[in-house]
Amino acid sequence: MKTPPELLSFLREKGDFFIATHINPEGDALGSALALSMALETLGKKTIVYDRDGVPELYRFLPGQEKIIDTSQGIQTSGLNLLLLDCNTPARAGIEGLRFKSSAVIDHHETESEFGDIRWIEPKAAATGLMIFNLVRELGVELSREIAVNLYTAIAIDTGTFRFGNTTAEVLRAAADLAEAGAQPGYVANNLYETWSEKRFRLLIMALSTLEIKDAVAFTFVTREMFHSTGAGPEDTENFSSLPRTMKDIGISAFFREVDSDEWKISLRSRGTMNVASIASFFGGGGHKNAAGYKIKATLEEAKKALLARLAQ
Amino acid sequence: MKTPPELLSFLREKGDFFIATHINPEGDALGSALALSMALETLGKKTIVYDRDGVPELYRFLPGQEKIIDTSQGIQTSGLNLLLLDCNTPARAGIEGLRFKSSAVIDHHETESEFGDIRWIEPKAAATGLMIFNLVRELGVELSREIAVNLYTAIAIDTGTFRFGNTTAEVLRAAADLAEAGAQPGYVANNLYETWSEKRFRLLIMALSTLEIKDAVAFTFVTREMFHSTGAGPEDTENFSSLPRTMKDIGISAFFREVDSDEWKISLRSRGTMNVASIASFFGGGGHKNAAGYKIKATLEEAKKALLARLAQ
Repeated sequence: MKTPPELLSFLREKGDFFIATHINPEGDALGSALALSMALETLGKKTIVYDRDGVPELYRFLPGQEKIIDTSQGIQTSGLNLLLLDCNTPARAGIEGLRFKSSAVIDHHETESEFGDIRWIEPKAAATGLMIFNLVRELGVELSREIAVNLYTAIAIDTGTFRFGNTTAEVLRAAADLAEAGAQPGYVANNLYETWSEKRFRLLIMALSTLEIKDAVAFTFVTREMFHSTGAGPEDTENFSSLPRTMKDIGISAFFREVDSDEWKISLRSRGTMNVASIASFFGGGGHKNAAGYKIKATLEEAKKALLARLAQ
Repeated sequence: MKTPPELLSFLREKGDFFIATHINPEGDALGSALALSMALETLGKKTIVYDRDGVPELYRFLPGQEKIIDTSQGIQTSGLNLLLLDCNTPARAGIEGLRFKSSAVIDHHETESEFGDIRWIEPKAAATGLMIFNLVRELGVELSREIAVNLYTAIAIDTGTFRFGNTTAEVLRAAADLAEAGAQPGYVANNLYETWSEKRFRLLIMALSTLEIKDAVAFTFVTREMFHSTGAGPEDTENFSSLPRTMKDIGISAFFREVDSDEWKISLRSRGTMNVASIASFFGGGGHKNAAGYKIKATLEEAKKALLARLAQ
């Protein structure tokens, strides 16, 4: 994987950057944005890191996360160069109303538009963090411990900490270099997987208790009432969709989260060659082959039926 | 990590090997034994791979596992050279009654005896598989896909697939080389973590639903009635005790399995410096610092109280 020379020139020549990533951010979005910000600041550039939804509690261990802002009020963005990470449309970052001097996109998702003066899209890269890892090296910036923890987390999250099918030799070699630079794999994993609140764990138990299996699809769901009774929030459901995949006869795990009355957000997880990105995109969503999502306005039963009907085709 | 020269000479000079590993084997024991056997056979040696307890179903995906024998009957071991892997006493392998021409020990556990003509003990190595990885290279044997899958599995199991504190840059670099040689990380992880039966998963949900938290101890249990209603068995509860450790405020996870009327088997899991081996040993059981167990004849409530009382001391 090589960074496009025009992107390297862009980063070297410009001075002021507005780094934005997608709404509802996870480790790859946040880790990539923070690492790139640190690398650019090492080169004497000014950076702002923006995420509309701020930093979920889970990721408060990321070095530098306190510098992420969740409002663009008072910022003259028209004088700044946008770096859009881990997504490829301004809408995905909730910044469609803002104007920038110029823009570059760095993403590993399938493209949804042609946005960006410079575009570096690698749908085969396991994580945007892996692209930033290469980019940081090509910029000639040394991997500090802070950059390493951010990039290691980014790559860990998007590969299920090296358990998903996108875990390649290149991914593991990058992880090794990041560990050498001080990322501490055990520390990162402990922060990602063993820092659940009791209410989150109780919500998981409730979600698992809704398990229903039909046509090799495992359905689980969480209602607003469950959020209410446990005190947990939507961000606490991250990765809930992964657990039913533990079962060997499950092709797809579909997790439904109630966002409003008769409105659901659905996370799909599959394994192997089963492509859920195309299913999500049919419903107006998106994602990767083995992890995708979409929203639907329907009752839970209708939403389940619609998914099964689509799968049957 | 360097293989001792005398071990390399031993392996190069001798022709017939009896490779044995510990009773109740897991991925590091089996993967290391199979990989070493394959490497030696590539060099034209004869090998027998022995494990007293055979190969658990979980590990039937390991290449070459069908060659592992669980009896030494009819084998003239006195003409063979023993290679004892992932343990360091014949008793741990259940072969204390057998005689060999000579013996070598390769292990990453703290030593329990001085057994072995040649001893290579690396308590700091994350896995015996990591030692074998180095050994195979130093023998000049190319990593075949079969060797790679076995060694990758060995290393994955003993590092929680790169989540435990023993995951170093060296571990990740070895994993990268093994992936390059064809180990397929996603395939191995799928076999290790995503092959549960539905009844096992339903039993887990039932067990989690019994969650009770007191004094930073997470209690969960499974009754004989739950086994009956799900169709799952006692072996399906392996690792059930680990899940509640996901919660950050939990010091100990205590999982109770009903073995008979008012008789319970308790699995304790802790993290960090919290030592559960001493608690288990108080109740007549045993184990390691972070994973131990014991049996008790009492009602569930009495058993929970007894544990809390002991912890309070």
